Amino acid sequence: MKSPLTIVKIGGNVIENEAELTHFLELFSRLSGPKILVHGGGKKTTALSERLGIESKLVNGRRITDHQSLDVAIMIYAGLVNKTIVATLQSFSCNAIGLSGADAGVILAGKRPVKEIDFGFVGDIELVNTGAINSLLDAELVPVFCALTHDGKGQLLNTNADTIASELAIASSETYDTTLYYCFEKKGVLRDVQKEDSVITHIDEALYKRLLKEQILAEGMLPKLENCFHALQNNVQKVCIGSTTMLEADHHLYTTITL
Amino acid sequence: MKSPLTIVKIGGNVIENEAELTHFLELFSRLSGPKILVHGGGKKTTALSERLGIESKLVNGRRITDHQSLDVAIMIYAGLVNKTIVATLQSFSCNAIGLSGADAGVILAGKRPVKEIDFGFVGDIELVNTGAINSLLDAELVPVFCALTHDGKGQLLNTNADTIASELAIASSETYDTTLYYCFEKKGVLRDVQKEDSVITHIDEALYKRLLKEQILAEGMLPKLENCFHALQNNVQKVCIGSTTMLEADHHLYTTITL
Repeated sequence: MKSPLTIVKIGGNVIENEAELTHFLELFSRLSGPKILVHGGGKKTTALSERLGIESKLVNGRRITDHQSLDVAIMIYAGLVNKTIVATLQSFSCNAIGLSGADAGVILAGKRPVKEIDFGFVGDIELVNTGAINSLLDAELVPVFCALTHDGKGQLLNTNADTIASELAIASSETYDTTLYYCFEKKGVLRDVQKEDSVITHIDEALYKRLLKEQILAEGMLPKLENCFHALQNNVQKVCIGSTTMLEADHHLYTTITL
Repeated sequence: MKSPLTIVKIGGNVIENEAELTHFLELFSRLSGPKILVHGGGKKTTALSERLGIESKLVNGRRITDHQSLDVAIMIYAGLVNKTIVATLQSFSCNAIGLSGADAGVILAGKRPVKEIDFGFVGDIELVNTGAINSLLDAELVPVFCALTHDGKGQLLNTNADTIASELAIASSETYDTTLYYCFEKKGVLRDVQKEDSVITHIDEALYKRLLKEQILAEGMLPKLENCFHALQNNVQKVCIGSTTMLEADHHLYTTITL
């Protein structure tokens, strides 16, 4: 039997609020067994860009990462947010080590090919170096990943944190029984987006298809759920979606997703 | 017999110039055996502070690290500079891993006590966790340290990169025969600061005392040399001071310091 591994991805809303972030990190530090944290930069990236007078570039509503935006992402993700999280976890006796995909060569990505849109310095994951991650976990370290990868040729790339979390979970499932937690601003997948407590507690593939057909799911949930089923179809044991209270105790409301 | 370890500290002038930095990192990547790189942020910190309208605070000519300056230091040191270096080293097949003192709890510091001046968020090193560093070196990783430490209570602290390099060298000397290289803008310790090639190739304690007495040394060199002798008196094998060409071949001019 494989031993368990917990991977938690936190959303921007948790990062924004210092008190909430600290509370979450205390909960996270108490999780037993090997674990990994994944984060993006939340609104801090937009805030710093605005202060520096760097305009967000959008093409067809999609954000473009030019050279300047990449530098801001590196400063916020790998700098301010990652190191604040690592130092806070250390204060809770959690032996965190902050990583971008370039560190120890853990996540190799390819710059997204230019088709209709040139997304700029955005990376699509090609390879997760499980050997490197396992040796950190074996040393009882707690990897904290920011939303950056590299192309192996010296170029850092902006990469979606949800995708980093699911690809890490998939790669780790060779060695571990992996559970993936997505913490975001809602209590889970909602039956009615207006009603905070209309959480669907369990979704399997059959229900997912029904919900899609009935068009019950909020549009923002669709890529998230696709990402979850992709992970489950690739040997991840279980995916949970909810607010940070999900890590507190079993009786809180959240959504569990299985095949 | 202990095996050798090389620790290299690069100065701001190397970080400023992209081509020079890349050339240096290629040289560094070719050094055989276990090695560690230490860096600060060069002028990038000042440049970002200026763009953000954050004034440098000086008291009696000494720089003060307030909350905003610390955030800038974290973004530049641990973010932009550290990750650029790590990604570049990876492109030269050097398995770099970027670290602040908080990561894996490697360097614990105390906030400098307020006496005549309150330096703000500046840390004086209290403990180097050699176990953590050795386990990274044993995994054939190349630690890249930025000039940040933590107090173990969640606070990151700005810490002089020269001091980080010498304290790492001292702590590593328990396990390794450690050579410490300080790369800066000159070719070495100069007999005449106006003459670039007046490098003193070897300084021992006796010569150091004579040079001090004759007031031959440039003022900026005094704390550097004090730092070097402190390292040597604490079991570091050898300290070298010079430009990055020092790593190229033995026949280049630089200063070697021994007891």
